[in-house]
Amino acid sequence: MFGKIFDNLREKTPLVHSITNYVTVNDVANMMLACGASPIMADDFDEVEEITTICDGLCINIGTLNKRTIDAMILAGKRSKELGHIVLLDPVGAGASKLRTRTAIRILDEVKPDIIRGNISEIKTLAVGSGNTKGVDADLSDSVTEENLQEMIDFAKDFSLKTGAVVAITGAIDLVSNGRQCCIIKNGVNEMRHVTGTGCQLSALITAFVIANSDDKFKSTVAAVCAMGLAGEIALSLQKDADGNSTYRNRIIDAIYNMDGKILDAGAKYEFK
Amino acid sequence: MFGKIFDNLREKTPLVHSITNYVTVNDVANMMLACGASPIMADDFDEVEEITTICDGLCINIGTLNKRTIDAMILAGKRSKELGHIVLLDPVGAGASKLRTRTAIRILDEVKPDIIRGNISEIKTLAVGSGNTKGVDADLSDSVTEENLQEMIDFAKDFSLKTGAVVAITGAIDLVSNGRQCCIIKNGVNEMRHVTGTGCQLSALITAFVIANSDDKFKSTVAAVCAMGLAGEIALSLQKDADGNSTYRNRIIDAIYNMDGKILDAGAKYEFK
Amino acid sequence: MFGKIFDNLREKTPLVHSITNYVTVNDVANMMLACGASPIMADDFDEVEEITTICDGLCINIGTLNKRTIDAMILAGKRSKELGHIVLLDPVGAGASKLRTRTAIRILDEVKPDIIRGNISEIKTLAVGSGNTKGVDADLSDSVTEENLQEMIDFAKDFSLKTGAVVAITGAIDLVSNGRQCCIIKNGVNEMRHVTGTGCQLSALITAFVIANSDDKFKSTVAAVCAMGLAGEIALSLQKDADGNSTYRNRIIDAIYNMDGKILDAGAKYEFK
Repeated sequence: MFGKIFDNLREKTPLVHSITNYVTVNDVANMMLACGASPIMADDFDEVEEITTICDGLCINIGTLNKRTIDAMILAGKRSKELGHIVLLDPVGAGASKLRTRTAIRILDEVKPDIIRGNISEIKTLAVGSGNTKGVDADLSDSVTEENLQEMIDFAKDFSLKTGAVVAITGAIDLVSNGRQCCIIKNGVNEMRHVTGTGCQLSALITAFVIANSDDKFKSTVAAVCAMGLAGEIALSLQKDADGNSTYRNRIIDAIYNMDGKILDAGAKYEFK
Repeated sequence: MFGKIFDNLREKTPLVHSITNYVTVNDVANMMLACGASPIMADDFDEVEEITTICDGLCINIGTLNKRTIDAMILAGKRSKELGHIVLLDPVGAGASKLRTRTAIRILDEVKPDIIRGNISEIKTLAVGSGNTKGVDADLSDSVTEENLQEMIDFAKDFSLKTGAVVAITGAIDLVSNGRQCCIIKNGVNEMRHVTGTGCQLSALITAFVIANSDDKFKSTVAAVCAMGLAGEIALSLQKDADGNSTYRNRIIDAIYNMDGKILDAGAKYEFK
Repeated sequence: MFGKIFDNLREKTPLVHSITNYVTVNDVANMMLACGASPIMADDFDEVEEITTICDGLCINIGTLNKRTIDAMILAGKRSKELGHIVLLDPVGAGASKLRTRTAIRILDEVKPDIIRGNISEIKTLAVGSGNTKGVDADLSDSVTEENLQEMIDFAKDFSLKTGAVVAITGAIDLVSNGRQCCIIKNGVNEMRHVTGTGCQLSALITAFVIANSDDKFKSTVAAVCAMGLAGEIALSLQKDADGNSTYRNRIIDAIYNMDGKILDAGAKYEFK
C-alpha cells in the first residue's frame, strides 16, 4: 500500500526547505537526497520567505533554536502555509526549556503545521504542558508501552483533533493519528537511539513523503515512519562485528537510498486502530 | 601534468580559512585534511581578520549565510586580498534569494576573489542576473550540454574577463576558464549529486590547490576539479550492493586522502579549448 | 584500573550539555552516544541555564565562538558550577585570535572549570600568553617531546595548581595533571590528526567520564584520554587499502561504541610520574 507513496516521492523529487539544528543538519540533507528529495537549508529572516516560496514544503526543527532563527521559522511557516505548502513541526526538546516550549507552541498557534512529529515527552508538553523531557530524549516515565497503548492512542487522536495536524509520536512504539484513525507502527529497532538525529531525519523524510502525496497526509506520514524503521532494521542486519553507531548512521541513510516502493511494501509493519 | 600540482599541496600543507555553511562544514574540514591542507573555520566579525592573517588563503561559501556572517565574509575577504592571499567565492544558492544574490555580488565587487566556483545557475545569476536557481542545485534549463558547449565556453571566458577571476562552472560537464583559455573536465559521475556538499568540498579543494600553486591559478583550479571528479569515480567503483549515498560520501573523501600526483595524472580527463 | 571507570559511565548514562562548534558537533553527539552518555546541544542565552540544570555536566568548546554564544557559555558555566556539575573547557584555537584567547581566559576566571583540555599551544596561551597556535592545531615548536618531557610535566602541574583544574594536554604525547601527579598517556596514533574534531570528541568524552566518576576527576580524565587513543589504534587496525580519513572517523566512534572496561584495561598505556 505504501509502495506507491514512496515511488511518487522518487518521481516528483520535491524541493524541501529545512530550518533545522546544526547538530544533525548534514544527515538530514543526505537523508533528503537518499529518499529522492532535494534539500535546501536557509534560516535568515531576510531570505526565508523567498526560499520557502520556491520550495514545495517546509520542515521546521527547533533543535539549537536561537533568537535569530525563531522569527525566521515563524515567517517561513506562515508564508509556506499561505502558499498551500506542506509544513511539518519537529518540537525538539520542547519541555526541556521554556524557550523551546514557548517557541513550539507559538509555531503551533501561528503557523498551524500540517504534521507534528516528536517523541512522547515533547508531544505531551505541547498537549498538556507536562511532558518529562530528558534533554532531547523522551523520559522513561512517558513511554508508549503495550500497557498504556489505548490511552496513548486516545491521546494522539485528541491532540490531532485539537491541532488539526497529523500527529506522529515516535519511540519504541510509533503512533500516527489524523484524529479519526490511529496507526501503530512496529518497524524500527532499539539501536537507532544510539545514532544522533534519527528523529530529525524522520521529520525531514515525512515532510518529503507528504509533499509528494499531499492528498493523503495521514497515510504518507505512516509510510515515512515505516520506511525509517525499516531502514533501521535493514541497516542493523548489515552491521559487522567491529561496526558501531557511526557506521550504523551511514547504513540507515544508505538503506533509504536503496529502498523502493516494493521493499517498503514488503517490510512495513503496521496496524490501523 | 597535474601530478606536480597535487604533490605541491601535500608538501606545503597550507592553512585554509573557511567561512562556510553549517550543512556541509564537517565534510569540508575532512576534505581539507584529506588533501593535505589544514582547515580553520571562524566566522565572527571580531576575529576573522586575525584568523585570515595567520592563514594562507580563504574560502567564502555563502550557504546558510546570515546577517552576522555576511559582514565577516567581506571583512575577511578584504583583509585576505590585502595580504595577497588566495580568495575563492562559492556563491551557493545565488539566484534563490535576493539576499544571496546581493551578497554574492557584493563579495565579487568588494573582495574581488581570485576564483569563483558555482553551478551554472549560480554563475549565470552573477553574470547576467537571470539564472534559474532551483534551491542550491542548477536548474535543468541551465545545463551545460554538448549542444550549448561553445556558447557556455564563451560565457565562462567572458565572465572570467569581466571579474578577473578564474571561473569554475561545475555540473555534469565542468568548465574552467581564465578568460583566454577554457578547460573542459569530464571526470566525475552523476551519483555525486546524491551527496550533499560535493560542491562545497570542491570549492575548499580548489582553494587549497591554488594556494599551493599560486603561480598558475588556472591550471591548479583545473587540477582540483579533475581530482574531485576522479575521487567520485574511484569511490563509485568501490560501492557494494547495499551501499548508498552516505557511504559514498565517506568514500569520496577517502579517495582524495589516498590520491597522489601519479593517480591524478593517470585519471584526469580534460581538454583545453 | 580504568575499566571500572568506563563501566560506571555506561551504567549511569549521564546527560551532557555541550555548547560547541558547528564543525564537529555531529561527531561529538555520536561520540557521546557511543560511550553511553546522552548529548544535548543548546547555546541560546535564553535557555542555557535551564538546559544545563537538567543535565549532569557541561562541555564548553569555543571553536566557532561568536558574540551570541560567548555570553551563553559564561552563563551556562556559572550555573553549572553553582549546581556542583562537572564543567570542562576546550579552548579551541586560543592564541589564534584575541577573541578566542580573551574568551578562554574569561571562562577560566569566571567559570573555573573542573577540567581544561587543549593542545599544547592552546594551553600555553592560557598559561603564559605565548603559545604558537597554528589555526586550531598546535605549532610544531610547541610539541611535547621525549626531550622536553620533564619541562612539560612541570608546566602541566603548575598550570593545574594555578587553575585548580585537571589539565589535559593532548598531542603526540598526552599529559594529564592534577597539580600533584602527572600521567603520560601513550595511546593514540598519528593518523588521528587527519580526522577533524578528534580533540572536540575527546573533550566531550572526558566530560562524560568525569561526570560518572566525579570522586576522581584526575583518573577518570586519564581513563578517557586512554580510551580515545585506544579507539584510534583499534580503528586504524581495521582500515583497509582504499579507506581514508572519512572512514577512519566512523571507525574511531565505532571503536568507543564497542569498547568496555575490560578492553580499556587491556589496551591502556600510561605511566604516572
